[in-house]
Amino acid sequence: MKVERNKWQNNFSEWYNELIETAGIQDKRYPVKGMNIWLPYGLRIMRNIEKFIHEEMERTGHQEVLFPALIPETEFQKEAEHIAGFEGEVFWVTHAGHDPLDVRLILRPTSETAMYSMFALWIRSHADLPFKIYQIVNVYRYETKHTRPLIRVREISRFFEAHTAHDSFEDAERQIKEDLEIFDNLAKKLALPYIVSKRPEWDKFPGAYYSLGAEVVMPDGRTLQIGTMHNYKQNFAKAYNIMYEKEDGTHEYVHQTTYGMSERLLAAVIAVHGDDRGMVLPPTIAPIQVVIVPIPKKDSPYDVFAYAREIAEELKTAGIRVHVDERDIRPGRKFYDWELKGVPLRIEVGPRDVEGQKAVLARRDTLEKFTVERAELIEKVRETLDAIMDNLYARAKEFLDSHIKRVDTLEEAKEVFEDRRGVVEIPWCGEESCGLEMEEILDAKMLGIPYPEEEAKIEGKKCAHCGKDAKFIARFARTY
Amino acid sequence: MKVERNKWQNNFSEWYNELIETAGIQDKRYPVKGMNIWLPYGLRIMRNIEKFIHEEMERTGHQEVLFPALIPETEFQKEAEHIAGFEGEVFWVTHAGHDPLDVRLILRPTSETAMYSMFALWIRSHADLPFKIYQIVNVYRYETKHTRPLIRVREISRFFEAHTAHDSFEDAERQIKEDLEIFDNLAKKLALPYIVSKRPEWDKFPGAYYSLGAEVVMPDGRTLQIGTMHNYKQNFAKAYNIMYEKEDGTHEYVHQTTYGMSERLLAAVIAVHGDDRGMVLPPTIAPIQVVIVPIPKKDSPYDVFAYAREIAEELKTAGIRVHVDERDIRPGRKFYDWELKGVPLRIEVGPRDVEGQKAVLARRDTLEKFTVERAELIEKVRETLDAIMDNLYARAKEFLDSHIKRVDTLEEAKEVFEDRRGVVEIPWCGEESCGLEMEEILDAKMLGIPYPEEEAKIEGKKCAHCGKDAKFIARFARTY
Repeated sequence: MKVERNKWQNNFSEWYNELIETAGIQDKRYPVKGMNIWLPYGLRIMRNIEKFIHEEMERTGHQEVLFPALIPETEFQKEAEHIAGFEGEVFWVTHAGHDPLDVRLILRPTSETAMYSMFALWIRSHADLPFKIYQIVNVYRYETKHTRPLIRVREISRFFEAHTAHDSFEDAERQIKEDLEIFDNLAKKLALPYIVSKRPEWDKFPGAYYSLGAEVVMPDGRTLQIGTMHNYKQNFAKAYNIMYEKEDGTHEYVHQTTYGMSERLLAAVIAVHGDDRGMVLPPTIAPIQVVIVPIPKKDSPYDVFAYAREIAEELKTAGIRVHVDERDIRPGRKFYDWELKGVPLRIEVGPRDVEGQKAVLARRDTLEKFTVERAELIEKVRETLDAIMDNLYARAKEFLDSHIKRVDTLEEAKEVFEDRRGVVEIPWCGEESCGLEMEEILDAKMLGIPYPEEEAKIEGKKCAHCGKDAKFIARFARTY
Repeated sequence: MKVERNKWQNNFSEWYNELIETAGIQDKRYPVKGMNIWLPYGLRIMRNIEKFIHEEMERTGHQEVLFPALIPETEFQKEAEHIAGFEGEVFWVTHAGHDPLDVRLILRPTSETAMYSMFALWIRSHADLPFKIYQIVNVYRYETKHTRPLIRVREISRFFEAHTAHDSFEDAERQIKEDLEIFDNLAKKLALPYIVSKRPEWDKFPGAYYSLGAEVVMPDGRTLQIGTMHNYKQNFAKAYNIMYEKEDGTHEYVHQTTYGMSERLLAAVIAVHGDDRGMVLPPTIAPIQVVIVPIPKKDSPYDVFAYAREIAEELKTAGIRVHVDERDIRPGRKFYDWELKGVPLRIEVGPRDVEGQKAVLARRDTLEKFTVERAELIEKVRETLDAIMDNLYARAKEFLDSHIKRVDTLEEAKEVFEDRRGVVEIPWCGEESCGLEMEEILDAKMLGIPYPEEEAKIEGKKCAHCGKDAKFIARFARTY
């Protein structure tokens, strides 16, 4: 049987919107635009993703905190550039009970302005640095663009943000490297290949010295940002007066970084690995890694249900997340359900399997079926789950690579965007005016230049727009 | 050494407020009244409590969901009694970006009105029942009373709410019994003895048919509600049109219940088990169950740090949460810190312990110290952690029992409230007017009647206020 990805690729938007609901990820019928309900199955996948995030945070010495979701207008307004970047899209709490509030509150769009006056109280000396905290919380943005579950929403309900403070620019740079390493570990668990770009000046995070963004390429060729890291230098420290005492007794502003991710990680998993039958979950984060479907036959002397339960017990003991589907419906309907929900591996057992002490394994990613001996089951299941993980990554990597194209001219770039789309890499002089005009001409966004920057530098090429000597490779894409 | 509980009991409010900050539970300096910041240590304890909640929910077949935090005014107003109960204390989101919203949004004070129009879509037939979901989220109440961390706040950031739907009143009653069993399991993990009362009509949850509340007695004799269960009968089902098809094809409104808890569980743990030195955490939820303090001696040939690390490794392998305090400060200061933070067991190792292959164990609850053989360490640590658990419960139970007094007259009741306070049980005719007047006279709240109600019924007594035949025992207390 062939893996079909027609609808997935050619009608992605519809495919995605349907799947979110039919696979039990979110319900979009909640009566506030851009705010959706997490359904149990979707939430279990997201929790598994978050478990990896918590583990990485613990490994790297970040401490978990939880800040209030409301920020006083007065705090919010301390850093001018930051405010300007968010003011048009914040939700305002203006009344409580029957009365107007003395100081209006905003629902956090991100927590810099909530956290940093506390940083000023918490950080005293060089011994307190580096200071590393994180939280996973709900944040709010009054999106005026078309909303889409997990991707563009007005309540991001699983927003991860790490905030750090350092004694020097160099140490902040080391932190950004650590962030990228964390991201890489996480992406491996999700079998997601990605690219990292340094955002152009005109698209960095409000208040940042520079911003990095990690992107995946979606089935329709548009890119989705799933991780960002910002080096703030001392911008916020100066606005919020966050100073530390150096060893020599003098005082200095700290250097700061942040690192952000969200439920977009799940959107990327759904989109990148899916096919026309539904989701394909990496075994690492699948709530059910193996589903067992008993296929009874009338008049057979063998109890396939008992056999299924025995196998399930054995897999569970081996630490595998397993479920036996004992519903009173046809096996075909069960196959359909679990394929939609992306369960990586299905085990079918019929009377003949009981008799021969065998089981049939069906891979969700390749749709291949094969028979294994009962005695080798655990080993084969483990091997197959690993093989699925590897195949998901390899398939996604091939897709990503085939959607990154380096060109020399804007004409070639235009062709790419008309054809299979993806990311186009174009020689660029480095001037803002040229960059903005290329965005206009291509009707695409500049993601930035490849990061680390050494990979972005080129020689002997001309800027595709102005014709002057090009300094960098710039990436353009249609984005989510 | 004796466990001192003078300040704890006689100056509880000050004791508690200090401890919240010094033990690293929350920071109260966040610039919005009644909204506090969870610090890493406090959050780790709360997460451990939540782990037990998640386990109980899984055991009892509740599914986790996540609803948006904003509720449209129109949804909120569908159930008149519920609205009346909350309208004076909700936060209003009236603007987004630069514009007023068409429909104003409220920050959820609890989620009935957010959830139940979805229930109407999700629940179709008797086969969908019982329907059991829960979430742990932030909710908001514009408290006008004095706020207090974890106890009375404007953002409850760890609000647990389970919502269920049933095909009959009987099945809803079965759910309430399950809720009480869940609560009992959880309370055991927290070593918290408690009482359950059925709230009087005038104090039930807005929209409920009846409400149960579980209370602990705090060190100052006031009670703290730490769990509530409500049977809604069909009140909300009718307002939100939640119907199911019965086996005979007719349609009927569902019966509903809810179950609520919050970070007050942690407040109760801190308050009930503490002493003048700080917190005493039940080993079940302590982020660090055992702290090892090496006590080096100058010129000693023994490396106590290496010995401490070895012991730590052994404990860790045995599944015990352990930390070695290698800070370059005096042991006495370390003792002070970890006693404040409530680490259940301290292990001290000096050169003599290395030499004799021993270790000194110090219990946080009783402050007892004793020496054990290295070979028996794991066993002794496990035994001692169990003994601490038992002792915490026994001590708290004794305190609770000694603070519940049954009396016949209001004079006697008044004396109790003047003296050591706690819960007073008084014969009551069952009339609302009498109950309210007794609240007035005693300057106390009626918690309700003991639950299950069989325990509340009495005969041969007269109502302490009106003198008519008493039907119930009613509980009164000063409450948080």
